[in-house]
Amino acid sequence: MAERFELVEKALMLMLEEKKYSTLRDILITMNPSDVAGLFSGLDERQIALLYRLLPKELAAETFVEMEPDAQKLLIQGFSDNELKDVLDELYVDDAADLVEEMPANVVKRILQQVDPEMRSSINQILRYPENSAGSIMTTEYVSLRPNMTVGEAILRIRRQGVDKETIYTCYVLGNDRTLVGLVTVKDLLLAEDDDDKIEDIMITNLISVTTRTDQEEVAQMFSKYNFLALPVVDGENRMVGIVTFDDAMDVMEDEATEDMEIMAAMTPSEKTYLKSTPMDLFKHRIPWLLLLMVSATFTGLIISSFENALSMLPVLTAFIPMLMDTGGNCGSQSSVTVIRALSLNELKFGDLAKVVWKEIRTAVLCALCLAAVCFLKILLVDRLLMGNANVSLLVDAAVCLTLAVTVLMAKVVGCTLPMVAKAMHLDPAVMASPFITTIVDALSLLVYFMFAKTLLGV
Amino acid sequence: MAERFELVEKALMLMLEEKKYSTLRDILITMNPSDVAGLFSGLDERQIALLYRLLPKELAAETFVEMEPDAQKLLIQGFSDNELKDVLDELYVDDAADLVEEMPANVVKRILQQVDPEMRSSINQILRYPENSAGSIMTTEYVSLRPNMTVGEAILRIRRQGVDKETIYTCYVLGNDRTLVGLVTVKDLLLAEDDDDKIEDIMITNLISVTTRTDQEEVAQMFSKYNFLALPVVDGENRMVGIVTFDDAMDVMEDEATEDMEIMAAMTPSEKTYLKSTPMDLFKHRIPWLLLLMVSATFTGLIISSFENALSMLPVLTAFIPMLMDTGGNCGSQSSVTVIRALSLNELKFGDLAKVVWKEIRTAVLCALCLAAVCFLKILLVDRLLMGNANVSLLVDAAVCLTLAVTVLMAKVVGCTLPMVAKAMHLDPAVMASPFITTIVDALSLLVYFMFAKTLLGV
Repeated sequence: MAERFELVEKALMLMLEEKKYSTLRDILITMNPSDVAGLFSGLDERQIALLYRLLPKELAAETFVEMEPDAQKLLIQGFSDNELKDVLDELYVDDAADLVEEMPANVVKRILQQVDPEMRSSINQILRYPENSAGSIMTTEYVSLRPNMTVGEAILRIRRQGVDKETIYTCYVLGNDRTLVGLVTVKDLLLAEDDDDKIEDIMITNLISVTTRTDQEEVAQMFSKYNFLALPVVDGENRMVGIVTFDDAMDVMEDEATEDMEIMAAMTPSEKTYLKSTPMDLFKHRIPWLLLLMVSATFTGLIISSFENALSMLPVLTAFIPMLMDTGGNCGSQSSVTVIRALSLNELKFGDLAKVVWKEIRTAVLCALCLAAVCFLKILLVDRLLMGNANVSLLVDAAVCLTLAVTVLMAKVVGCTLPMVAKAMHLDPAVMASPFITTIVDALSLLVYFMFAKTLLGV
Repeated sequence: MAERFELVEKALMLMLEEKKYSTLRDILITMNPSDVAGLFSGLDERQIALLYRLLPKELAAETFVEMEPDAQKLLIQGFSDNELKDVLDELYVDDAADLVEEMPANVVKRILQQVDPEMRSSINQILRYPENSAGSIMTTEYVSLRPNMTVGEAILRIRRQGVDKETIYTCYVLGNDRTLVGLVTVKDLLLAEDDDDKIEDIMITNLISVTTRTDQEEVAQMFSKYNFLALPVVDGENRMVGIVTFDDAMDVMEDEATEDMEIMAAMTPSEKTYLKSTPMDLFKHRIPWLLLLMVSATFTGLIISSFENALSMLPVLTAFIPMLMDTGGNCGSQSSVTVIRALSLNELKFGDLAKVVWKEIRTAVLCALCLAAVCFLKILLVDRLLMGNANVSLLVDAAVCLTLAVTVLMAKVVGCTLPMVAKAMHLDPAVMASPFITTIVDALSLLVYFMFAKTLLGV
């Protein structure tokens, strides 16, 4: 399917190059705006303008919304004032606000000059809300009804007002002062017994709403929990200010998952897609964490240095350090990633800490027994008998496997505890993932290793 | 908000214990079914039955759908045949199919006895599709229209048929043989100029559909790309068989992100939530990977063993091994996680491999220069001057930093290449994340380390 689509893309680009504009146009008008927008990535300025002008007005505007910011900027810079106004008139307020946020100052100035005053004030309102808040992702266009309307009147109002609302399927019932008092769905209206029924009699009044300051991640969670098409956004006095629609919530869910993965892999989250990021962008997002973690590894180095004598008396001990460190790191990251994900899906809260630690300890005991047993046999059979390394005595084997068991236990406890503590301290739990845990567990496991070596082997 | 909700939950549980049933019921009926369902987790069998019987019929059914499988099973086992039939009559077909999939055989038998024959055959149809396919998550209930209907007739049909359809907002226009020929939205119908307009004149015909076998992850990606409320599912002959709705796509998106994170942290993905998993469940999902990775670390051990003489001649070299291994692992996992996420969001394809490798090489050069410079100074100032460790000569410092630079380069190239190769081989790229990359990079970096040590220090 994806492969077939690439072929279509190539054929269309060929038509553009060969100037077969009318055939190209005939195909474009049968396509979904999101797919048309995909064609623009990778084109140069001249081609972008050429392709865009082939689109009929409405498709052009719908395509524009779905395009990458870079292509949007090039287009706007080439637009006449009238062309710009045509596009802006077709945009929903939340898309217009996104556009304003992405564009450089000189482009923003032209945009704000061309939109009508009502939209300008809505855009400004949305941009005033903190980033990542419900206010910043909402749209101010929705269908509002009054409690004393009849079903028939409500349907008429939707027919008159609906054209430029992002969704008409959930309508909000506002009392005096624009207070949110209820909602009705178009399904309720269509299936109502009688056109003369009053809205206040059929509306749903046990409402779930968010405020303009609710975090967007919480908003997305509510969509996935309640399966809403739209969620009303109110101010501190329960006055309706806008709605968030399910498609915006989906984007938030995807972005938040990407962000969590980036943080877990020790990167600062990036707004740009991978192909749009320059090496310098990637460098800036990665280097601070690499430096921090590299310098933290100094402690591990210090521990090894202080046991230098032991290691030179029994050099074979060194060979097992990577295995102990890696296994500890892997065990820790299993626990931390599981807990981080459960926290961000609201399956866990800080109050569950004792339950989580107890569960991880029991899991760790199982893992530790199994790993230590396999490791003991492996060292005995492979290192001692197969490779004939006489330095690997049974006592060395025992010291390694005891260290392994204790490391697994420590790694799992540290791995599940730190993210929950971070959450309780209102830090992002995702920071407490593999790289961070690994650094801590490395140091701990080396200390344990040398302790066992001292006790069992007397080095 | 979440904290406030916990207080409400506690208050309600107190009412249940104190048998204040009518007050409890009055509060329950104002709540959203998803929230009511949340109350059931953690209750015992008797309390579950008691609480459930307080709910009015419709709320009871809506709540039932949102409950955890364990509680559902307990309830069904306590239901009379009539009670069971009442609940099943209220379920949508896809929810009923999910229920049948979750329940043990004896419960399934009772369920299939109580549903009406039409639903039974739909459930069986859905269960026949492969797991994780569009067929397995679709519902067979949707509003279908004929091309020659008028807008007025279509609205009438929706009013008559809509009650038990999961969504009425997108209606599918079917030709002969149930072939999918177009779609109209309720918005189009309500905003149509004239009730006598023909459906075939206003319907959208450039349709995007999936087949029953399309992978659910691809389906979810299409929702996030196109912002659909529902997506039609057709068979090989373009005959309409069902629809997937946006709420199911959201669940898939969330599940797939969780699955990717679990695989990236070297775990077999689990269907159960963390709190529902026993330590034995967790153990089974984690131990195979731990064993595999532990045994792979044998190679790293072998490399160290074979350079035992070098290490005993210059023991200070050992102290830098953890730092080199950790930094290599972190660099590799940054690249691999970035690429894995971009692949699963369809931002990258295998054809981009050269572009990706080139970008990672340039990023790696920047990171390597910066890390090596900082490391050189750190070793000079801290290890040599501050700690007064005379063994750390300038040449040792140089060997460590050169190794670091080469390791960073290798880690980034391996980290970005392996997930893309996995994708091209139709394996899950997420397997090629941190733990796997770390094991490879560890071995490579040690080889480079000892090579530099040999050349520069003559050990």
